[in-house]
Amino acid sequence: MSDQPPSDPVCWFDPHEDRLREECGVFAISGTPEAAVLTALGLHALQHRGQEGCGIATYDGARFHHERHLGLVGDSFTQADLPQRLPGTSAIGHVRYATQGGTILRNVQPLFADVAGGGIAIGHNGNITNARMLREMLVETGAIFQSTSDTEVVLQLIARSRAPRLVDRVRDALRDVEGAYALVCLTHQGVIGARDEQGIRPLVLGRLSGAPVLASETCALDMIGAAFEREIEPGEIVLCHDDGRVESVRRGTSYRPARPCAFEFVYFARPDSIVQGRSVYSVRKRMGIRLAQESRPEADVIVPVPDSGVPAALGFSEASGLPYELGIIRNHYVGRTFIEPTQVGRTIGVRRKHSANRGVLEGKRVVLVDDSIVRGTTSRKIVQMVRDAGAAEVHLRSASPPILWPDFYGIDMPDREQLFAATHSIEEMAAAIGCDSLQFLSVDGMYWAFSGAVRDDQAPQYSDHCFTGDYPTRLVDRDRAQADKDMQLSFLVDA
Amino acid sequence: MSDQPPSDPVCWFDPHEDRLREECGVFAISGTPEAAVLTALGLHALQHRGQEGCGIATYDGARFHHERHLGLVGDSFTQADLPQRLPGTSAIGHVRYATQGGTILRNVQPLFADVAGGGIAIGHNGNITNARMLREMLVETGAIFQSTSDTEVVLQLIARSRAPRLVDRVRDALRDVEGAYALVCLTHQGVIGARDEQGIRPLVLGRLSGAPVLASETCALDMIGAAFEREIEPGEIVLCHDDGRVESVRRGTSYRPARPCAFEFVYFARPDSIVQGRSVYSVRKRMGIRLAQESRPEADVIVPVPDSGVPAALGFSEASGLPYELGIIRNHYVGRTFIEPTQVGRTIGVRRKHSANRGVLEGKRVVLVDDSIVRGTTSRKIVQMVRDAGAAEVHLRSASPPILWPDFYGIDMPDREQLFAATHSIEEMAAAIGCDSLQFLSVDGMYWAFSGAVRDDQAPQYSDHCFTGDYPTRLVDRDRAQADKDMQLSFLVDA
Amino acid sequence: MSDQPPSDPVCWFDPHEDRLREECGVFAISGTPEAAVLTALGLHALQHRGQEGCGIATYDGARFHHERHLGLVGDSFTQADLPQRLPGTSAIGHVRYATQGGTILRNVQPLFADVAGGGIAIGHNGNITNARMLREMLVETGAIFQSTSDTEVVLQLIARSRAPRLVDRVRDALRDVEGAYALVCLTHQGVIGARDEQGIRPLVLGRLSGAPVLASETCALDMIGAAFEREIEPGEIVLCHDDGRVESVRRGTSYRPARPCAFEFVYFARPDSIVQGRSVYSVRKRMGIRLAQESRPEADVIVPVPDSGVPAALGFSEASGLPYELGIIRNHYVGRTFIEPTQVGRTIGVRRKHSANRGVLEGKRVVLVDDSIVRGTTSRKIVQMVRDAGAAEVHLRSASPPILWPDFYGIDMPDREQLFAATHSIEEMAAAIGCDSLQFLSVDGMYWAFSGAVRDDQAPQYSDHCFTGDYPTRLVDRDRAQADKDMQLSFLVDA
Amino acid sequence: MSDQPPSDPVCWFDPHEDRLREECGVFAISGTPEAAVLTALGLHALQHRGQEGCGIATYDGARFHHERHLGLVGDSFTQADLPQRLPGTSAIGHVRYATQGGTILRNVQPLFADVAGGGIAIGHNGNITNARMLREMLVETGAIFQSTSDTEVVLQLIARSRAPRLVDRVRDALRDVEGAYALVCLTHQGVIGARDEQGIRPLVLGRLSGAPVLASETCALDMIGAAFEREIEPGEIVLCHDDGRVESVRRGTSYRPARPCAFEFVYFARPDSIVQGRSVYSVRKRMGIRLAQESRPEADVIVPVPDSGVPAALGFSEASGLPYELGIIRNHYVGRTFIEPTQVGRTIGVRRKHSANRGVLEGKRVVLVDDSIVRGTTSRKIVQMVRDAGAAEVHLRSASPPILWPDFYGIDMPDREQLFAATHSIEEMAAAIGCDSLQFLSVDGMYWAFSGAVRDDQAPQYSDHCFTGDYPTRLVDRDRAQADKDMQLSFLVDA
Repeated sequence: MSDQPPSDPVCWFDPHEDRLREECGVFAISGTPEAAVLTALGLHALQHRGQEGCGIATYDGARFHHERHLGLVGDSFTQADLPQRLPGTSAIGHVRYATQGGTILRNVQPLFADVAGGGIAIGHNGNITNARMLREMLVETGAIFQSTSDTEVVLQLIARSRAPRLVDRVRDALRDVEGAYALVCLTHQGVIGARDEQGIRPLVLGRLSGAPVLASETCALDMIGAAFEREIEPGEIVLCHDDGRVESVRRGTSYRPARPCAFEFVYFARPDSIVQGRSVYSVRKRMGIRLAQESRPEADVIVPVPDSGVPAALGFSEASGLPYELGIIRNHYVGRTFIEPTQVGRTIGVRRKHSANRGVLEGKRVVLVDDSIVRGTTSRKIVQMVRDAGAAEVHLRSASPPILWPDFYGIDMPDREQLFAATHSIEEMAAAIGCDSLQFLSVDGMYWAFSGAVRDDQAPQYSDHCFTGDYPTRLVDRDRAQADKDMQLSFLVDA
Repeated sequence: MSDQPPSDPVCWFDPHEDRLREECGVFAISGTPEAAVLTALGLHALQHRGQEGCGIATYDGARFHHERHLGLVGDSFTQADLPQRLPGTSAIGHVRYATQGGTILRNVQPLFADVAGGGIAIGHNGNITNARMLREMLVETGAIFQSTSDTEVVLQLIARSRAPRLVDRVRDALRDVEGAYALVCLTHQGVIGARDEQGIRPLVLGRLSGAPVLASETCALDMIGAAFEREIEPGEIVLCHDDGRVESVRRGTSYRPARPCAFEFVYFARPDSIVQGRSVYSVRKRMGIRLAQESRPEADVIVPVPDSGVPAALGFSEASGLPYELGIIRNHYVGRTFIEPTQVGRTIGVRRKHSANRGVLEGKRVVLVDDSIVRGTTSRKIVQMVRDAGAAEVHLRSASPPILWPDFYGIDMPDREQLFAATHSIEEMAAAIGCDSLQFLSVDGMYWAFSGAVRDDQAPQYSDHCFTGDYPTRLVDRDRAQADKDMQLSFLVDA
Repeated sequence: MSDQPPSDPVCWFDPHEDRLREECGVFAISGTPEAAVLTALGLHALQHRGQEGCGIATYDGARFHHERHLGLVGDSFTQADLPQRLPGTSAIGHVRYATQGGTILRNVQPLFADVAGGGIAIGHNGNITNARMLREMLVETGAIFQSTSDTEVVLQLIARSRAPRLVDRVRDALRDVEGAYALVCLTHQGVIGARDEQGIRPLVLGRLSGAPVLASETCALDMIGAAFEREIEPGEIVLCHDDGRVESVRRGTSYRPARPCAFEFVYFARPDSIVQGRSVYSVRKRMGIRLAQESRPEADVIVPVPDSGVPAALGFSEASGLPYELGIIRNHYVGRTFIEPTQVGRTIGVRRKHSANRGVLEGKRVVLVDDSIVRGTTSRKIVQMVRDAGAAEVHLRSASPPILWPDFYGIDMPDREQLFAATHSIEEMAAAIGCDSLQFLSVDGMYWAFSGAVRDDQAPQYSDHCFTGDYPTRLVDRDRAQADKDMQLSFLVDA
Repeated sequence: MSDQPPSDPVCWFDPHEDRLREECGVFAISGTPEAAVLTALGLHALQHRGQEGCGIATYDGARFHHERHLGLVGDSFTQADLPQRLPGTSAIGHVRYATQGGTILRNVQPLFADVAGGGIAIGHNGNITNARMLREMLVETGAIFQSTSDTEVVLQLIARSRAPRLVDRVRDALRDVEGAYALVCLTHQGVIGARDEQGIRPLVLGRLSGAPVLASETCALDMIGAAFEREIEPGEIVLCHDDGRVESVRRGTSYRPARPCAFEFVYFARPDSIVQGRSVYSVRKRMGIRLAQESRPEADVIVPVPDSGVPAALGFSEASGLPYELGIIRNHYVGRTFIEPTQVGRTIGVRRKHSANRGVLEGKRVVLVDDSIVRGTTSRKIVQMVRDAGAAEVHLRSASPPILWPDFYGIDMPDREQLFAATHSIEEMAAAIGCDSLQFLSVDGMYWAFSGAVRDDQAPQYSDHCFTGDYPTRLVDRDRAQADKDMQLSFLVDA
């Protein structure tokens, strides 16, 4: 163990401010020896969903054990004493990516609490859109909150249910919750998994020699050699018993149609994961194929923005017949932000992560393929770097449609005023980025890549709100905040 | 900030186990620039009350700021960026000594929570004797507990009060609480201080250029140059406003007589502190004077067990006319437990902390004076070391009476079965320790040293339960545990 | 600065054991403000050449400044106080990869010493093949050695030269040295660069606004925006003055023909670097093109072993007309070795770094392309993983010839007895790896990819000894060790 | 082992600057199991001689093992794996106190080097007064220096000797060395101890079950239960064989009279150590007795400046008949320098270490007894603190004579221009300190306390140069520096 005194400095955020938004991955297993070791491996496979913090909780039949750390799974949960530190036959784990205010240990999950009915550890991916309302209601009636996370709201709701079993309390709690989430809980009565009613956030069920496994993505099952069984259905709550039985406490017969998150295909999920029966890698390649059909420029070479643009660029190359080349090399040792020398030009920042491969760019008309364009700042730097390396023309292609609306379900994204595509025309964007042409995949093209179908505008098959503004759930907290603002404005107007 | 990923490993204790018992020190200041810096200095002066962890919370008029660390104040709160890290004009701080299970960051104080009425940070010295009962009741009605500390019980009670001001909620909460405590709280409405009804744990009020200061001991006031004003009365709750007003929300007109803790004089308090108007150093010297009168042996030299035995040894020397010599030297660089070589004798452990000064011991009849004798193991090693250095005789004197009963108010002490004096006669103790004679100060002698008065057995003036078994409060949790055991036994008997 | 007490534990290696072998990268700049910042950026670009330790030395016109750290450049040399910590207008830097016995700080470079003529810091990439002989000679005549590194041998030789200028002392020292090296030195008379007589290890010269820059690869020039000027010639020693003059102290008119290291093309150099006028990426692609021509199997898909196999796989795909797919996904968060669960199969180790992309492998005849095969253990695991993902056939292709001989010039490689290709036929290797077919690029094919020419067996154009056994230098230490062994054997035979 | 990347930042000092001066302690043991454990305990007992860094080297019959750390022995050498980390039956250790420029790991001892004849580790307490001259001579003839420490000079001299055994090489090396030192060396031929010709720095020999032990002070022997045998004689060099034989390679028949350092009695040595047959504690008490005889003021109470003034204050109290009281309390948790609040008075700095015990000071005429007065700044703050606590008069007494001359033998002391007593009359000093009277012990009084004898001015029995200016050795480097300055001045005058 470390000799360094750990510390937990925190600036307590004003409760009227926005909560931290976060991407995360969850994992759980029950009824197996080495539960903590398998959970560490599963979290390692989910590391791309969150690198800021990680935690594991286990239950050994008598006691709970719990560790949380800042940093990577591979730095904290690899030692040979892990089974001693975290004994038990069931476990849940969590990786977390925090986007605001620095990461602090108290917000790292799983959280643990003693509630009526026993101890419960909980790990959560997603965002609850009425969390602030629920929090205010709970505080009003005597609850104390020790963190700013949505997860503590869920814990408080669980604690207030009068149902006999903890899994039933979880069911009661989730009735009040609006939003997008995939949850795993550890109790003395078994491991619980739950997914929001429209299945916005992903959660899959697998088996390792009979032991049930829950994970955000199938790649975590592959890592430990578990077989994929099925996705947890939207709105479903399962209780995984130690003997391997998986009891579906609430069937996923939701009154709302399922709308899984489009961004899992676009960016989040690992390319080797299977989401809704489809290979993420193949879907991304199809996005590139369709993109080429929609917007093929006269050019000499297709170059991906590594690594997220690679599958789409391969598809683009295949469909366009233009050669695919590694025109940009990724530096794997990124580390922290360096101080920049004052005398050296403006593209040094991007060069720390990427470098131009001059040999394949010089004198060429280059098509740069990226998975998406959010703020446009990175695109501008990469285009400049490619030009500096001698490219004759640079045509930028985004393998997803323009992002016009913010997300409220756990994806870190700027406010609408800062979304590049929401505030600029395509021509303005191209000019700002400095490319010779800019094209995005169409929404229909994206749906084709996802499933071969077109978008049903009456009942969209995916949570595509970032591209369409069509949000799958009520946005309670946002609407209340807006109402407050409007009221203030009306007062001002009246006065 | 540290580059080291902090971590928070925890084994979640069985709720049916004993809580962690702890010694602590608290400090608070309101309405002054540099509140965090002054709090750091104040905590440094209280460091003898707890070395395992420390924390500071501040309020800057809009937000709370909060840091907790393992280790010493001087390792965590000395840097020049402290006013930036912890801005604000009011602050509370805490030092903590944990005795069981290793220290973990989540139990370091102040704790912070959002409750109805606003944010509240709380630091606590003492022990609540009905904490387990309250905790069970709270969990029953929907509370979640994220730590094992008594302090979270108080937070939950505060959250459930319906009183309008936070200070009134604190008052409501403390009505339900039995035990010994000194509390400081930080709110947006001011700094709150509270002391248990019999004033068992200490809390004093001072002023620094008009700004109110609360501290466990006067030495913390001296450190920052604050003037001592008065002790917080038993049962009193004060609200220190930012403008310097100290509002006594509940007057200390307790229905129970005050009984401050005798152990503050015996061991805890720093010798330069003033407790109840008396210099701790002088009281300890008087204990030595009386001890000499009660049990002066034929001897050549008086030797203190450093450092806690020094004042009493000076008094013993003065009263007995025997010369005072530093026969035992204390090593200031104690550090961690060393591995012991197998071939070297049995006193190596004690030698790491103390060494015999052979020149003043050889051939002498030595009187060793210590402040108290708890387990007897250290005494045995020191006596052996003094004998090894050539002492002709070793007479051990304890400047406090035999410890016959466990404490339930925050002092770390073994169970009755392990208390040396509770299970051995004085002759058996002397034999086990290996000294030529052994004497303890009488209870009356202790009272004389404290105040010149004798003990009023109907209404003892001090919490002297460790020596007398006369506990000042109900021991709710202990009695319930005992009742459970008795019931189990009666079942066994019946069956 | 870190609060953690740094430490330097070391087991002092038996001088009769083998020295540590190491890969490294060097960088130097002179006559520019922000020399340390530019050096940090340059080292970051060379990070792929060594991740275990890094160091920078600067000279500010009066004093030398020096920092060495374990770990990545991005963890140690990025802070805003770097110009204060390491002031000066000239600097050298080093990244290091240690292969044996754990990394210890004392072996991290640059080394610094006071020698006759002034202070000198030195950073070194390569290996000296008569280092042990020189070391014994130096110790014999009164030298003390405080590390096990070859670099200290060079320092001692520099110290013994009687030449007036430090650069001339370096020249004198290198006269005695046999082997492969690229050196950078920092002195009060300027920055010195030197390359071994056959140019085995690389060193290039660039300019940043007139300031001379030395680096192991051109990618470090690109990082800071410096223009490439030329390679340092084999055997050349340059002195870079603060005013920008580059004085060639010893012209590279070597009596031995240049033989740059083939492995820079095969594996070491970053793909965007230019080595000997050729793009490393393009050369690697040509290796794949030629490999396809030499050994195209009947197959469905070309899959690279990421990331080093990617350019060759692209060339193989282009030449074979078979589609290129990312059938193996690399995990970027590798971290430390995890403990492996006992119940899970044998391929878990490789899955931490790579995962199979089942969608593009299932039912396919797969051609796996890797840059080289050293021990065969990784190949075996990857082939198994690809089979587990459903591949119908797996054909393994190595884009370089079989490695039959060990390296003695700074590349970490096993002894001949452990070299897979040196001890197995191709059929045995294929069987051990478990692939359906196995082919290596021919030596002629490699030469074609390098330069379009064929190998001149009388005067090979490259240091290709690992493939051919044709070593470019004398191996003094190895031969002496062999002679010792032989003599012992002959004694045994005689006896 | 620590996960934290250790680092070794260094500003390389101008060789024309003064070397680091340092206090140190050394320990060695040979021919015993658990050599490293015993050495760690011995160093712990010597921790008062140096707290900045510590190191241990061991030899296991085949290899050397070596660890050095910043910080306390108790933080680095206590773990249960110590015998595995540092195996062997002989060991040497070192604790170090650095006074300038921050401590860096490279200057922590023991140093290790390969020299002709084998490996050698060396630890050193003291200072070599011709080190700079020797260093220049060695560099001139080809030596390289990797640190600024005197110890490396000794290593280089050892390396150049042609004597057959390492102990004879040490003897040859020390012939050229002028100054004050106690050395321990570890070689494959045994443990070597050496003391300068006049025995200025201390070194004692003890036995633990037959195994020879060397240590700076007897308290280190007591710690491990070893019996004291004798002091190493001035000028003596011993070789401790693994079988317990102690061979005196050079008898201490020095041509110069022994002059042990007076400051060991005054300040350095631990009070329970025996130096030259006398208890340090008793000598210090005698200094207080004589001080009272020389300068007893009218006063009410004797108060020591803790902890170093305690024995003299006890002696002063005994001789004067005035009561001894702990008027100043020492804070044991000093830690780093705190930031000071701007609004609080000037004595806060001293309060972090000491606090006034008002109860025994108020209204009293106080005699403050300290061991010595160097710069006067601390005295001024303590006197002010005592006055602030209500003392009616403050009389300061120094238990050693005025310090008028700098030390050149390893004691950290300011230049003559900054020595308080060298630049002020006693009246000026008292005024600057703010005390009512100030007196120092006389040199004759000090001699009486040491041995009962008077000073032989022709052949002083102690190295008392700080008080008398009578240096025991030539000050080669200082005189050469002075000569350089004089020559420059004469040039200036001539011109």
